[in-house]
Amino acid sequence: MALIKGSVARNLNENNVTQAVIERFANTPDARLKVIMNALTRHLHEFAREVNLTEEEWYEGIKFLTATGHKCTDTRQEFILLSDTIGLSQLVCAQSNKRDQEATEQTVFGPFHIENAPKLANGADISGKRKGDPCYVNALIKSVADKPIANAQVDIWQADAEGFYDVQDPNWTPAKMELRAAFTSDARGAVTFRTIKPCAYPIPTDGPVGAMLKATNRHPMRPAHIHFMVHAPGFEKLITHIFVEGDEYLDSDAVFGVRSSCIGNYVRHAEGEPTPDGKKSTVPFYTLDYTFGMQPV
Amino acid sequence: MALIKGSVARNLNENNVTQAVIERFANTPDARLKVIMNALTRHLHEFAREVNLTEEEWYEGIKFLTATGHKCTDTRQEFILLSDTIGLSQLVCAQSNKRDQEATEQTVFGPFHIENAPKLANGADISGKRKGDPCYVNALIKSVADKPIANAQVDIWQADAEGFYDVQDPNWTPAKMELRAAFTSDARGAVTFRTIKPCAYPIPTDGPVGAMLKATNRHPMRPAHIHFMVHAPGFEKLITHIFVEGDEYLDSDAVFGVRSSCIGNYVRHAEGEPTPDGKKSTVPFYTLDYTFGMQPV
Repeated sequence: MALIKGSVARNLNENNVTQAVIERFANTPDARLKVIMNALTRHLHEFAREVNLTEEEWYEGIKFLTATGHKCTDTRQEFILLSDTIGLSQLVCAQSNKRDQEATEQTVFGPFHIENAPKLANGADISGKRKGDPCYVNALIKSVADKPIANAQVDIWQADAEGFYDVQDPNWTPAKMELRAAFTSDARGAVTFRTIKPCAYPIPTDGPVGAMLKATNRHPMRPAHIHFMVHAPGFEKLITHIFVEGDEYLDSDAVFGVRSSCIGNYVRHAEGEPTPDGKKSTVPFYTLDYTFGMQPV
Repeated sequence: MALIKGSVARNLNENNVTQAVIERFANTPDARLKVIMNALTRHLHEFAREVNLTEEEWYEGIKFLTATGHKCTDTRQEFILLSDTIGLSQLVCAQSNKRDQEATEQTVFGPFHIENAPKLANGADISGKRKGDPCYVNALIKSVADKPIANAQVDIWQADAEGFYDVQDPNWTPAKMELRAAFTSDARGAVTFRTIKPCAYPIPTDGPVGAMLKATNRHPMRPAHIHFMVHAPGFEKLITHIFVEGDEYLDSDAVFGVRSSCIGNYVRHAEGEPTPDGKKSTVPFYTLDYTFGMQPV
């Protein structure tokens, strides 16, 4: 029953306006949408009341959100970046992916995945000849019960040694996918490829999110990682990173996404040592062995 | 002192991530910005936890905000429209403008004001020859102590009889300002002009905000009104509307902006009656007399 009507509806104040908005959502056909709109209204209003938000501050917020929207393109998602940097992405990720202790943990998706990455055979080189230390990855896709999973679809993406994903190049086109690929696990559950060792890098700072980090005296760095997204029938989709042991930003990831179970041991080898593909490297290189534990549906 | 460090920082869950984000804002130089970012983080996180927001719902939200940003142009402010329709604008307006009971109340600014409207002399016709019932406005700008205020700067803007502001015409340019003007009050505190009687109209529904209203089964209508913004030295800036007594949407304004003290009596006159400018009208017309009470600074 509507409580806000007549002269009250014609004189809403900062307190009863909340009830008025909630009543306006009363006829929302989708019950879940109604729950979300009601809660969003309550919490947003409570925020504005608690800080006694001024009209000038409100307008700064409007301009910030507008600039954030204008920064979004097909290859740049500034709202995801905003969500990531205020911990909302990790919050939703954590509460949405409760898994067995043996399962590899989920972390944030990030804004740089691209559909339809090149499908490559095991052993491929995804480095695009970019500068960086060669790194040979041997990923085993297994169930939490330690059984190999063949034919899992595994998307890989990562930044280069200068901290940029391919899509961040202003001249990037879908024909120029580098440091990203889609693999299929073999009978042992293995996915193997050659890449470059990932480096810590700043999230893009040339937009409103960068301005927010600067204004709040926060660094924009993410600890080095390779992204993995694994699809296997009968198992929960897994979206995660494998971080680099020893990275200086593991405790202060700008997007709060580190999982200690997802820190990999990237082992350094001297030049001249044999590489996993049976050759000899003329430069130092790294190997990463990591076993993923997939959660049954 | 940081509570979130080491292995905790590497395994943030949906609960302690909030504290981690707040700690990250600890070195914000501007104390007010720090208060705002902390409160925004807490309330936004609490919203996401309360509804147990899923990854799919989060992504719908990202897409909604992105589309809202993309809809914003120099003459369209979809984020203000969003704020208006969820009552946030009225909340901020109400808590930011506490005034004496005799003072005219503030209401929402709305997205359609334009800087540098044409400066016109009292008595001018701002209708741009648009269709609609002629309406003669006689606004008196006074202090709350009932003293006339001369030389007040008064911006006027309103929609036409079809519910559109001039800037909503896709072919609009700043050279084509209609149904908007800037007046200066005379020695009696008076601002007079000829316009058309405002009509109830829908807020723009061709964007994400319109989609939200549709999905929640809400009407997009605003009760008819003329916007006034009054600047006078020594008084608080006044931004308000004068609504139309009897309008069917006064109790359900899509943006929650009605103030019962700002409902005007638009008096109908038959054709042939003398108009305030000393002529005789060949069609029925309206007159509006309204006295504004300005709050001293």
